[in-house]
Amino acid sequence: MDAISVIRAKRDGTRLTDAQIDWIIDAYTRGEVADEQMSALAMAIFLNGMDRAEIARWTAAMIASGERMDFSSLPRPTADKHSTGGVGDKITLPLAPLVAACGAAVPQLSGRGLGHTGGTLDKLESIPGWRAQLTNADMLAVLRDVGSVICAAGEGLARADKKLYALRDVTGTVESIPLIASSIMSKKIAEGTGSLVLDVKVGSGAFMKDIDSARELATTMVGLGTDHGVRTTALLTDMSTPLGRTAGNALEVRESVEVLAGGGPADVVELTLALAREMLDAAGLKDADPAKALADGTAMDHWRRMIAAQGGDPDAPLPVAREHHVLRAESTGVLTRLDAYAVGLAAWRLGAGRARKEDPVQAGAGIELHAKPGDHITTGQPLLTLHTDTPSAFPYALEALADAIAYAPQATEFTTNPIVLERIA
Amino acid sequence: MDAISVIRAKRDGTRLTDAQIDWIIDAYTRGEVADEQMSALAMAIFLNGMDRAEIARWTAAMIASGERMDFSSLPRPTADKHSTGGVGDKITLPLAPLVAACGAAVPQLSGRGLGHTGGTLDKLESIPGWRAQLTNADMLAVLRDVGSVICAAGEGLARADKKLYALRDVTGTVESIPLIASSIMSKKIAEGTGSLVLDVKVGSGAFMKDIDSARELATTMVGLGTDHGVRTTALLTDMSTPLGRTAGNALEVRESVEVLAGGGPADVVELTLALAREMLDAAGLKDADPAKALADGTAMDHWRRMIAAQGGDPDAPLPVAREHHVLRAESTGVLTRLDAYAVGLAAWRLGAGRARKEDPVQAGAGIELHAKPGDHITTGQPLLTLHTDTPSAFPYALEALADAIAYAPQATEFTTNPIVLERIA
Repeated sequence: MDAISVIRAKRDGTRLTDAQIDWIIDAYTRGEVADEQMSALAMAIFLNGMDRAEIARWTAAMIASGERMDFSSLPRPTADKHSTGGVGDKITLPLAPLVAACGAAVPQLSGRGLGHTGGTLDKLESIPGWRAQLTNADMLAVLRDVGSVICAAGEGLARADKKLYALRDVTGTVESIPLIASSIMSKKIAEGTGSLVLDVKVGSGAFMKDIDSARELATTMVGLGTDHGVRTTALLTDMSTPLGRTAGNALEVRESVEVLAGGGPADVVELTLALAREMLDAAGLKDADPAKALADGTAMDHWRRMIAAQGGDPDAPLPVAREHHVLRAESTGVLTRLDAYAVGLAAWRLGAGRARKEDPVQAGAGIELHAKPGDHITTGQPLLTLHTDTPSAFPYALEALADAIAYAPQATEFTTNPIVLERIA
Repeated sequence: MDAISVIRAKRDGTRLTDAQIDWIIDAYTRGEVADEQMSALAMAIFLNGMDRAEIARWTAAMIASGERMDFSSLPRPTADKHSTGGVGDKITLPLAPLVAACGAAVPQLSGRGLGHTGGTLDKLESIPGWRAQLTNADMLAVLRDVGSVICAAGEGLARADKKLYALRDVTGTVESIPLIASSIMSKKIAEGTGSLVLDVKVGSGAFMKDIDSARELATTMVGLGTDHGVRTTALLTDMSTPLGRTAGNALEVRESVEVLAGGGPADVVELTLALAREMLDAAGLKDADPAKALADGTAMDHWRRMIAAQGGDPDAPLPVAREHHVLRAESTGVLTRLDAYAVGLAAWRLGAGRARKEDPVQAGAGIELHAKPGDHITTGQPLLTLHTDTPSAFPYALEALADAIAYAPQATEFTTNPIVLERIA
């Protein structure tokens, strides 16, 4: 077996054999297959695709490349959520403690942001003292004591995926359904959750720009999870405009705490509850009432205990950026468009995200949205507030927003997208 | 400008802009663009192609990545030949001194073998004392004194191509017309020859398996040469069976010397003369008579002087392999097939070629062909003699030959392919 023959097979449109897939994933993990060979294969997969059986084997080989976690010693059923990433998508923050408050264990291994979408760990790190890195034993202890934990995946999980993910990021091979689906599902299956809900974003701020691609990705992932004995469902959800009214690390933590306190933007509450119900159903907790847990403060209690268990101070003031700039409405009427991708890119340029893995992020940077599509607005009213520690970034952020906003005359009937577009099971 | 946006453009089927091509070739040469990025781009080019203008710019950028040679100080017109590579293709050896004997200067920068096709430098290195590495000054001196020189290209020529060629070799991105054409032509144009004849091989032993691909490659390269002021023509020639009666380093030198002595296999003589006439025509030497120069010994005189000028002893006995094995005919009838690729692969396994650039080759290893397609043969007569210093290789070489040979009944009319299939100008 050699790398070139595997690359050639996929390049020439052949399906890869189980033996070829097993060999190349293992050899790549061990460093025998070089990065430049794997990136050529990734591009061939990007352009020529993989069928369902190939994706399943590829995923299994990535799971086998690392350790598997085991939560069977926990007294509660495990449930996890994965989002394909969007702008202002802070849902994991209220969701994990909420579902824990309803009786499931939520082992939420999360990532950092890269590009225009934020990362859950970056957001939580804006809380003074909070640590993302836990040992497997510490993670299990927090799960047992609190019921939910949000932390970085250990080095040992799906090792092949770790290498491949970093490689795809620099070689233009990210937006491929077989590669995205196998990457996500290898981590989630190796993590050992009993049930999983996928939040597959659709729209300008998501990897999947149209609902057909999103449906294909969701269906592929649900199939992979089910085949590996994980109860898996997916919601296709709207990402044409940012979720909630904030995009940026500390800004999103503040909004998440508002939701846990029983308030917060309607769309964030709606999606948090929809995902919580999916997770609780999949975990066999059909009688749980997440809306009540938000309203009566038990979700907030779990949040505070979860943050404190990882060294964070839930009462500490959150960082605030040094400078801000208000962008005002240029027209009176109905806001018809506030583009998710543009807001994500602007937030990234303000310092909320990173260009390279090793870059730091600014805790306070980001964007507050004072209006959302469908809202009636008046010329001169504040639309967005931009926050940053580096005001030289303002012009670049504003440039990103140049075509992001559109208005219609006052009388226009304007229907916004529902948050949950479709359910795949 | 960044690598990912260039990769994505080609991945998504867009044509690359001049600025993108210039930037990525330069940045890759400087090491700013990583190998894994260039290999992803190479695969995207492989699968999505480049149009003629893109190939022209890509070639120009590769020329600009290194130095250019200049032979304008020579009193003779320069003419060069390039073969896309085949099994038993020793034509450069008799051709260069022959064309020099007819009045042109032949600056033949050559390569080493990789895979199943042999390399001209490997062949000549079987001559005791002969050196492939010359400084530019030494190369010019040999050209001035003898009229022809066959040597390794200096490090400075088409630097981007050197890196890219090595990368394509390990990433399954070799057999791409835009990448092959730009690689060959960037080196030949940078080398500074005034005219160029391309020998584009077609058949199982060649990169191009069918005549349509070969024609497309030839037309692309002729266009590139012409656009850069090099008088360029191409012959499409048969590579369904090995050229001549030997494949292997010293074996091919011996056969080349037979041709220079006025003998040798008919196909080698025919192709040598056809290419010589093309080169002499392109160099403006229409009255030269290469057949006469072979017959009267002047080509042989030039060969001896050329070999001696690079330290070689033209009278020294050539190395002979320690072991041999005779493969005999299993049938009486007409030999209808002796597959070029299989013979090349078998010769490679016997030690005539290398698996990795840093491997040595055996001077004596290779295969002698005692019959060629169209010959009448009798059961038990020798068909092939396999030579090697490592007899443990015999079974692997014989395995490569398992399906390479076919016979027809004695009375069958069998027409072999002509050597020169087509001319492109």
